[in-house]
Amino acid sequence: MDFVLLVIEILAILVSAYAGMIEAKRQDFDFVGISTAAMVTAFGGGTLRDLLLDRTPLFWVENYQYPIIIFFLSMIALVAFRYNKELFRQRVMLYIDALGLGLFSAVGVGIALQLNTPLFPAVLIGVITATAGGVLRDILCNKIPEVFLKTTQLYVTCSFIACWFYIGFYLLGYGEIIGLSVCILVAFVTRVLAVKLDLSLPF
Amino acid sequence: MDFVLLVIEILAILVSAYAGMIEAKRQDFDFVGISTAAMVTAFGGGTLRDLLLDRTPLFWVENYQYPIIIFFLSMIALVAFRYNKELFRQRVMLYIDALGLGLFSAVGVGIALQLNTPLFPAVLIGVITATAGGVLRDILCNKIPEVFLKTTQLYVTCSFIACWFYIGFYLLGYGEIIGLSVCILVAFVTRVLAVKLDLSLPF
Amino acid sequence: MDFVLLVIEILAILVSAYAGMIEAKRQDFDFVGISTAAMVTAFGGGTLRDLLLDRTPLFWVENYQYPIIIFFLSMIALVAFRYNKELFRQRVMLYIDALGLGLFSAVGVGIALQLNTPLFPAVLIGVITATAGGVLRDILCNKIPEVFLKTTQLYVTCSFIACWFYIGFYLLGYGEIIGLSVCILVAFVTRVLAVKLDLSLPF
Repeated sequence: MDFVLLVIEILAILVSAYAGMIEAKRQDFDFVGISTAAMVTAFGGGTLRDLLLDRTPLFWVENYQYPIIIFFLSMIALVAFRYNKELFRQRVMLYIDALGLGLFSAVGVGIALQLNTPLFPAVLIGVITATAGGVLRDILCNKIPEVFLKTTQLYVTCSFIACWFYIGFYLLGYGEIIGLSVCILVAFVTRVLAVKLDLSLPF
Repeated sequence: MDFVLLVIEILAILVSAYAGMIEAKRQDFDFVGISTAAMVTAFGGGTLRDLLLDRTPLFWVENYQYPIIIFFLSMIALVAFRYNKELFRQRVMLYIDALGLGLFSAVGVGIALQLNTPLFPAVLIGVITATAGGVLRDILCNKIPEVFLKTTQLYVTCSFIACWFYIGFYLLGYGEIIGLSVCILVAFVTRVLAVKLDLSLPF
Repeated sequence: MDFVLLVIEILAILVSAYAGMIEAKRQDFDFVGISTAAMVTAFGGGTLRDLLLDRTPLFWVENYQYPIIIFFLSMIALVAFRYNKELFRQRVMLYIDALGLGLFSAVGVGIALQLNTPLFPAVLIGVITATAGGVLRDILCNKIPEVFLKTTQLYVTCSFIACWFYIGFYLLGYGEIIGLSVCILVAFVTRVLAVKLDLSLPF
């Protein structure tokens, strides 16, 4: 199980870094901008969580392999962009990103609960962990954060719902693995449905 | 007195959250964007203060009722917006916001002084506590922060002056309640005057 | 040597604060905006480093003279701007800024290594210390961060290379002063060359 989670984590980090690079490329950033956007998208949410909860060292300092991987991925992506090739297909990216959305939500809530955070702020921290990276990237790119727009398919909402499922199973006394799996499942299903059925908040 | 301060705090948080929602509404944000803008406006300054001073847990984690209240207020506001109704009148908002400006300035300086922050940085932290939420909201909305513009009536300046009054009474050995009351009074009077007389920095 | 470093530090802080003011002036900010932009440009990188490494008190709280100096410099600059005078010549600014780029890179990596940060994240923190202030200022001014654009002459890259030189000399067992000097030298030479020869990242 741990191995499965590690694989999901790595893939999700790669995919969100890649999403950051695509956005940076659209703004015609150079390599500095592209690798920064990649790291901010991938690590922004977790970094904000660690700052808000006063955890140290930061997870990308502890798992220093992650920034190294993303640095080299940025180089590979630059070459791929030049030949108009995509490293990940759109559909594959959606699935991996939806899994990551659930995983990072669960990790965020779980860490917050461990540190005795009350339920509602714990859910907020789960949502921040999973979604703040993209918001920070949009700010860096001088854009209105995409997830706040009415035209955007449910994203933060999926994380929010999934976090409450995690809390529910936690309060019922189920183990962490159950809560984590349910959270990933709920985020994955709601997010994929939202994209397939083009669901967005009507208000 | 404590009760009066609590009432001011709650009203000021509600009013600044509401100001965040109005701005978000202008950008045509959905519910995710509106509630985020509300929370960032209301809690951004205090959160930045807590991060800069390395305080933990954050005040909105400890007082977890506040984010819950704002979450539900966002829902009510959404309905009100639909019927073009205003939850608070413009004039009422000015008065409450001016009280909050003074209160949060005083709280910020007070906490900074308790942690042995030298005077000038303590004043900066008071100003940040009272005004950074609005700056962060404007960044989220991809706007130039309003308080930096020449056309904006004195706001940060009122907080800055009020903070120095707090420091003055603190150095003179007066109790915290006196300093707090004077700080709120000065911020309130200067801010209301600035709006009524349309005063802004000439440079 | 300590005295030389202190002089470089003060000059570099003044120059980056001044660069912040110029940018703020271009946006037609008032005094609040100009002094905020000055402080964010000068202290933003170091503040982010201290937050990420969980160091307390922040360096501008400890060295409280710096924000005071910048506050009064902002006032002087306002008067100078009015008479269209420049406080620093463009060429002088380039040289001092290039020295500061090296100094702050070295200080950032050095502190990170002291706190047992692995090498790659330590370099990132060095680069953040030296360059994040300008990025935060551009975000405040609602602009795309200049250092991310293809048209910008090497800046972050110079800091990145200089940080690795610091790490190299550190691993070879040389003292801190050697590492620091080499780091400053490398950043200075590469940055000045980049500007003189108009070098930017080709991708």
